[in-house]
Amino acid sequence: MDLDTLRDGLRGRLLTTADEMAPFLTDWRGKWTGHALAVAQPDDAQDVAHVVRWCARHGVAVVPQGGNTGLSGGATPDTSGRTLLLSLSRMRRIRDVDAVNGTLTVDAGVTLLEVQAAAQAAGRLFPLSLAAEGSCTIGGNLATNAGGVQVLRHGNARELCLGLEVVTAAGEVWDGLRGLRKDNTGYDLRDLFIGSEGTLGVITGAVLKMVPAPATQRAAFVAVPTPQAALALLQLAQATLGAQLTACELMSDACIALVERHVEAARLPLQDRSPWYVFLEISGSACDDGANPALERVLEQALEQEQATDAVLSSSLAQFDALWALREDISESQGAEGPTIKHDIALPISRIADFIETTSTELMALHPSLRLVVFGHLGDGNLHFNVSPPAGARSAQDRQDFLALETPLNRHVHDAVAARGGSISAEHGLGVLRRDEAAVYRSPVEQRLMQAIKQALDPQGLMNPGKVL
Amino acid sequence: MDLDTLRDGLRGRLLTTADEMAPFLTDWRGKWTGHALAVAQPDDAQDVAHVVRWCARHGVAVVPQGGNTGLSGGATPDTSGRTLLLSLSRMRRIRDVDAVNGTLTVDAGVTLLEVQAAAQAAGRLFPLSLAAEGSCTIGGNLATNAGGVQVLRHGNARELCLGLEVVTAAGEVWDGLRGLRKDNTGYDLRDLFIGSEGTLGVITGAVLKMVPAPATQRAAFVAVPTPQAALALLQLAQATLGAQLTACELMSDACIALVERHVEAARLPLQDRSPWYVFLEISGSACDDGANPALERVLEQALEQEQATDAVLSSSLAQFDALWALREDISESQGAEGPTIKHDIALPISRIADFIETTSTELMALHPSLRLVVFGHLGDGNLHFNVSPPAGARSAQDRQDFLALETPLNRHVHDAVAARGGSISAEHGLGVLRRDEAAVYRSPVEQRLMQAIKQALDPQGLMNPGKVL
Repeated sequence: MDLDTLRDGLRGRLLTTADEMAPFLTDWRGKWTGHALAVAQPDDAQDVAHVVRWCARHGVAVVPQGGNTGLSGGATPDTSGRTLLLSLSRMRRIRDVDAVNGTLTVDAGVTLLEVQAAAQAAGRLFPLSLAAEGSCTIGGNLATNAGGVQVLRHGNARELCLGLEVVTAAGEVWDGLRGLRKDNTGYDLRDLFIGSEGTLGVITGAVLKMVPAPATQRAAFVAVPTPQAALALLQLAQATLGAQLTACELMSDACIALVERHVEAARLPLQDRSPWYVFLEISGSACDDGANPALERVLEQALEQEQATDAVLSSSLAQFDALWALREDISESQGAEGPTIKHDIALPISRIADFIETTSTELMALHPSLRLVVFGHLGDGNLHFNVSPPAGARSAQDRQDFLALETPLNRHVHDAVAARGGSISAEHGLGVLRRDEAAVYRSPVEQRLMQAIKQALDPQGLMNPGKVL
Repeated sequence: MDLDTLRDGLRGRLLTTADEMAPFLTDWRGKWTGHALAVAQPDDAQDVAHVVRWCARHGVAVVPQGGNTGLSGGATPDTSGRTLLLSLSRMRRIRDVDAVNGTLTVDAGVTLLEVQAAAQAAGRLFPLSLAAEGSCTIGGNLATNAGGVQVLRHGNARELCLGLEVVTAAGEVWDGLRGLRKDNTGYDLRDLFIGSEGTLGVITGAVLKMVPAPATQRAAFVAVPTPQAALALLQLAQATLGAQLTACELMSDACIALVERHVEAARLPLQDRSPWYVFLEISGSACDDGANPALERVLEQALEQEQATDAVLSSSLAQFDALWALREDISESQGAEGPTIKHDIALPISRIADFIETTSTELMALHPSLRLVVFGHLGDGNLHFNVSPPAGARSAQDRQDFLALETPLNRHVHDAVAARGGSISAEHGLGVLRRDEAAVYRSPVEQRLMQAIKQALDPQGLMNPGKVL
């Protein structure tokens, strides 16, 4: 392939040696490894357009990549070695900050942490927050419609984006960088590109929505006997606290035990262990001196009604951070126990308790030695219904035996999700990991509609092939 | 045309006489009148699919209609008499109420008021609210991505919809009725159909999001010297009140004078007139006893800083309603003054004051006798920058002279909007009214993307032809 013509018009970098390319060709979990013709790191949208046009002319597939922190293999090329890895990592400009409009305009390659910092510098909050925020890019967050821990109050990445800039499959720049709360001038291209994981075009820039920064924050860590009780606590908290409730997370005792094992400073902040815990966060505006006593009332009422058995409230920023860390450190602590079979599912909130109880019982009956590590964003109906190998099973054979269960376990869990009107892919994207399974649960009508859109916007089929559809 | 084969499988009604059809063929403002082969009123989604399949087979265009309250002619057929008017007005079931999940599942033909009532019966709030709510249908609200007076806090219709049921152009039912906060299992078909005004398919049902009902509400009516001061008040209110600020509306003194002239009970609630007024609404959850004093502090501070010159706070529900009515009655009061040249525009909030001042001065210099009636949703950047004929100009010739100005005035205003990164269509839809103008301001890339989608999902071009694109 004649890479010189690609290099000619490119202002950014083109990496072609195996060493240079290696970091881009394996996902950070080490689950997928691919090959590429080259890695292009363009400097701006016009530069991306140049790359995509070159690919279109030469029939070369394009795999866009942000921070390479995805969990579903959506940013890893296949093994053919004939695709171009398009890294947005050099596109890191904060293009504009409009504090009065409450908007930030940024390049796709800006990390989520940098976006948060830019909002903070403007006296505002960019409320998207997730574990990989130091490395993941806003372009990747939008391409996968990322979720995280503030969705209950502020929505997914989609709800935090007002406008997009996208390089189409034809290598044209679509300038949809509008910073407007209302705009009905045609089809919603923005939301079509968001969540399409680079299969319809490459997101190169975005207008993001900032919200007022909270004046006060406080957290509660609550022991609850069952998922059903956790749900009752959520309802009570929502009814009482309204918009001041900004996070509601659920985790089983097994999760906290793992964190205590693998994180030095971590310890359960309550006297007695409980099968389940709920983490609540409230964020107050300057005016609501009422939120703190209200949270206390919620906890008192929950204790009286036996929806909760114990609770602790943060009384300092350090305590607030320590309580959050118990929740945030679950994923890595589980990773330290060996391979993980992950499920990133969403359910109608009214079906969650039934799902957890039924499905846990079924899986434990089938595989009594496996360990369930169940946690997630209760307020959004989003569970990470994860599975770890038996304690102490660390040999290569153990690993192989465990991973052989991935497909049947996925099917069991996802069937239970589908039966309850849920989603098998909530916030991590389909990538290659969930692509085939998503097709199993998708209706033929829906499949046809999506294929028609893919065909319309990427007729050559060169945009991140093998992902999503 | 052989209507018998259409009638055969239809469980709903088919209207074919001129008298029966008349109410469906003219919009409620009387601005557009069309003709139709027949008016079909199906009973459910399968019935709609039957109608659409029949139309596809016979090459008959379909014009979907909800409450026929649109302002842009999107639900009126053309004059060919060869289209089928598809009225969703008999599809009025509330299919499901899930209070724990916070969702309602409804037929497209349920009126917005009925949706609000169903949410209220479940102890929740459905926060979409607009003037036509007694007659407009939720299907129409979604097809146009309607806005209204609570967008500042709760978003447009799009943000209040979790799932859709749509009959495609091929006459298939797409069941996307998912009640999930997170779902990333492919392209965002939901948001593509929302706002597409029936040109890609017919919305037949929806899963809607309810929010916690506010425990308290209060309104303030504030005199401000300039749009710039109004903006400063908005910033102050947002920073102090956060999510408790649920509406922020702007109106000129001319608006209030019109309401006082045409609505018996209406009167300015302040001693002295002011060039501009801001209406603020706060909604409190059960806990925030802090919101009321905080609103008072905001007003005191605004008065001190001379961003406001006077203010009144509602102290009863009757006063709250009376203050809201001053804002809500502007449109009808303006209608009583003769024809209106409407502009439904959105701007970055940071550009609004400059836009109003500059554009008003320009228009008044060009047409000193015209009357500007400027009001809107300041918090969303959405203005109804409307124009009335000179006072007392009521003859047929006056009307004709005035309406001859529509096209040049539209162009002047919309050029000013486009120059500031705004939108010429914020919340009323494009329909036929704004279709051609939208094309003027749309980039060729965007036009091609939208046409590709239209072609992909409606290859015969039979879904609401002549609208949007």
